[in-house]
Amino acid sequence: MSSSVATQFTVAAATGGVTAPKGFTAAGLHSGIKAKAGALDLGVLAADTAVPAAGIFTTNLAQAAPVIVSKQHLGTNHGWVRAIVVNSGCANACTGVVGLNDARQMTAETAAQLGCQPEQVLVASTGVIGVNLKMDKVVPGIHAAAAALGRDGSVMARAIMTTDPFPKEHAVTVKTARGTFIVGGTAKGSGMIEPNMATMLGFVSTDAKASPAVLQRALRDSAEDTFNAITVDGDGSTNDCVFALASGASGVEIDDELYPALVAGFYAVSRELAVGIVRGGEGATKLITIAITDAHSVADARRVAKTIANSPLVKTAVHGADPNWGRIVAAAGRSGVMFDIDRAVVHVGGILLFENGLPHDDNAPKAAEHLKQKDVSIDVDLGTGGGGNATVWTCDLTAEYVKINGEYRT
Amino acid sequence: MSSSVATQFTVAAATGGVTAPKGFTAAGLHSGIKAKAGALDLGVLAADTAVPAAGIFTTNLAQAAPVIVSKQHLGTNHGWVRAIVVNSGCANACTGVVGLNDARQMTAETAAQLGCQPEQVLVASTGVIGVNLKMDKVVPGIHAAAAALGRDGSVMARAIMTTDPFPKEHAVTVKTARGTFIVGGTAKGSGMIEPNMATMLGFVSTDAKASPAVLQRALRDSAEDTFNAITVDGDGSTNDCVFALASGASGVEIDDELYPALVAGFYAVSRELAVGIVRGGEGATKLITIAITDAHSVADARRVAKTIANSPLVKTAVHGADPNWGRIVAAAGRSGVMFDIDRAVVHVGGILLFENGLPHDDNAPKAAEHLKQKDVSIDVDLGTGGGGNATVWTCDLTAEYVKINGEYRT
Repeated sequence: MSSSVATQFTVAAATGGVTAPKGFTAAGLHSGIKAKAGALDLGVLAADTAVPAAGIFTTNLAQAAPVIVSKQHLGTNHGWVRAIVVNSGCANACTGVVGLNDARQMTAETAAQLGCQPEQVLVASTGVIGVNLKMDKVVPGIHAAAAALGRDGSVMARAIMTTDPFPKEHAVTVKTARGTFIVGGTAKGSGMIEPNMATMLGFVSTDAKASPAVLQRALRDSAEDTFNAITVDGDGSTNDCVFALASGASGVEIDDELYPALVAGFYAVSRELAVGIVRGGEGATKLITIAITDAHSVADARRVAKTIANSPLVKTAVHGADPNWGRIVAAAGRSGVMFDIDRAVVHVGGILLFENGLPHDDNAPKAAEHLKQKDVSIDVDLGTGGGGNATVWTCDLTAEYVKINGEYRT
Repeated sequence: MSSSVATQFTVAAATGGVTAPKGFTAAGLHSGIKAKAGALDLGVLAADTAVPAAGIFTTNLAQAAPVIVSKQHLGTNHGWVRAIVVNSGCANACTGVVGLNDARQMTAETAAQLGCQPEQVLVASTGVIGVNLKMDKVVPGIHAAAAALGRDGSVMARAIMTTDPFPKEHAVTVKTARGTFIVGGTAKGSGMIEPNMATMLGFVSTDAKASPAVLQRALRDSAEDTFNAITVDGDGSTNDCVFALASGASGVEIDDELYPALVAGFYAVSRELAVGIVRGGEGATKLITIAITDAHSVADARRVAKTIANSPLVKTAVHGADPNWGRIVAAAGRSGVMFDIDRAVVHVGGILLFENGLPHDDNAPKAAEHLKQKDVSIDVDLGTGGGGNATVWTCDLTAEYVKINGEYRT
């Protein structure tokens, strides 16, 4: 990706994840929160010194204790943070005063090990709701993690997994006329995913130099079309959050001129992680990219895309490789967004299936072939003349999803 | 059910369905729209003369041809109708001008047989979207159906089925101080169900004497908490409609005093049919009754109930008999409705699982036992002091749903 002449830059994939940028270390280990021996369940991401940080959080009214504590700490420190401590296997949500105290103790124990204030530590949890943390396991785990901090970020990516089938991390190098910086990140899914935010955790790091305010803006701007543009099952959770840390170690200072380069780096990493979450969605066998064009507004386009993406009938049809454009049109029609059905055009895998209010069923066999692939696309042009576009990613709905979620706790 | 002294009445279950009230005949047969030999796919409900009628229709922007034609005919005749012709196996939706002509021809053929105007006939279709009707089968089918009209309404109930596992019909006797009348009905589901309206068809008949305007009002009032309070998969369809016909043959005239008795009759029949649609939902093994109490408003209560009802995580947990109140609280929390989580109280099967922001996990085994039954209940009191209540019915989400909808067309 490159922008206008004024702020030319390039974004290229790099190796590693959340510790790919200079100035960060990470750890991940099995503390005993998860019953399964050896399953990583505790991670720490540390900056070498206190650095600017930003966070976006679930909009669910039922906010988990770590969400409440992290919001407070970000506010108290005006966005300067030393570390993030995170656990999987227990969401620490709906746990009352005990849960709040546990989340605060997690930050205090981490701070004591790193020699900083508890308010300089953020905390995140993911896993089952309504269960208290086993603090007798968590506290020694934090001590061991702090002692094990190193440059390998992949242990952190593994420590935050719940039902995720694979770890998700990504990094990019952003080259600008005024120097090069790196953006890295890691995230986890994989059920209760329609972030705004959901059981999703995301951690984005960079060695660019940016104020907390600039970092917050860049995180929001890049999340809108990445983390907030995915849905597995439409269920936004109690624990979703995405954090960003900027070590400044690259020496590249983000001003108005370089801001687009920072957003581009954040976007590239966040998009890869977000798509990875969908690919690893519970029971998912296919990644579905849904692009809506020419709605009255971007908000309208998003609403149509999300309605199609959350339609069980569309998701099962894609699973069965059935080019059932009728379900796509019906989902768009009930989204609450105004458009003229006779002007809407539906393509599946680039193959025309619906136009001028009528099907092109002669194309159905070709579209069915496309739907047998792992990466499939649905494009709907609403023809309103408004020019509002949006892309949303989701996965198919499978019997395996039902199995996973019918048996999660039992 | 009985009301205040001024308008005392009783509602009691009766035998039969849409032809239980006097003044109606019905027919149902295999015309050849469905490939399977002997599968009923065409039905006619006829009144002995033109009678007051009412209709409510899908709010989906993509409206099927029969929906467009029936709306026109109801308007043209100011709500006086002689018959309704209906087919299953083909939705006649997204079929353009040809589809509109086909729907109009269905009314014209029916009218010719019954000796009335085409505008005195309503038409409804259900089945696959985007396929034209086989009019060479439909026209002889209509002729045969008109000749076969009789007092057995069950053939009509069977003729409107698609993936429905069983026919749905119900009737009640309403006794008032000024005489007795009957309300009967039939309906079909069973995927793409979140009426407002969906692939749902409903037909309610009565021998009470009511004007088209009173009938329309009674249909709307009773549908709000019945047909519009169910959801199988959140997918509202292109073809949903519910029609009501009033023959007046009982001689009981519905004025302001008896209006509550008419609504009570409509409600009793519509509720039974609506719950039957959910019970027969695609792949469903359980009926879930979700009651929300003390929201700020009835609209808020409905929104929370629908969000819980459409949560794949809640639906799969119920399927697995997992009393996962965390998913219920998370769904309520993301519904967009304001309430205080710490004041919310969650019961499953009448068993307390969540209160004062904390779980009662000691009760989980009892709640799990309840969830193993076929009829289960979820009650959430939001504690806002607003007093808004609503009940919604849905079913569990199963691997069978995925199978049915992944293989529907292929």
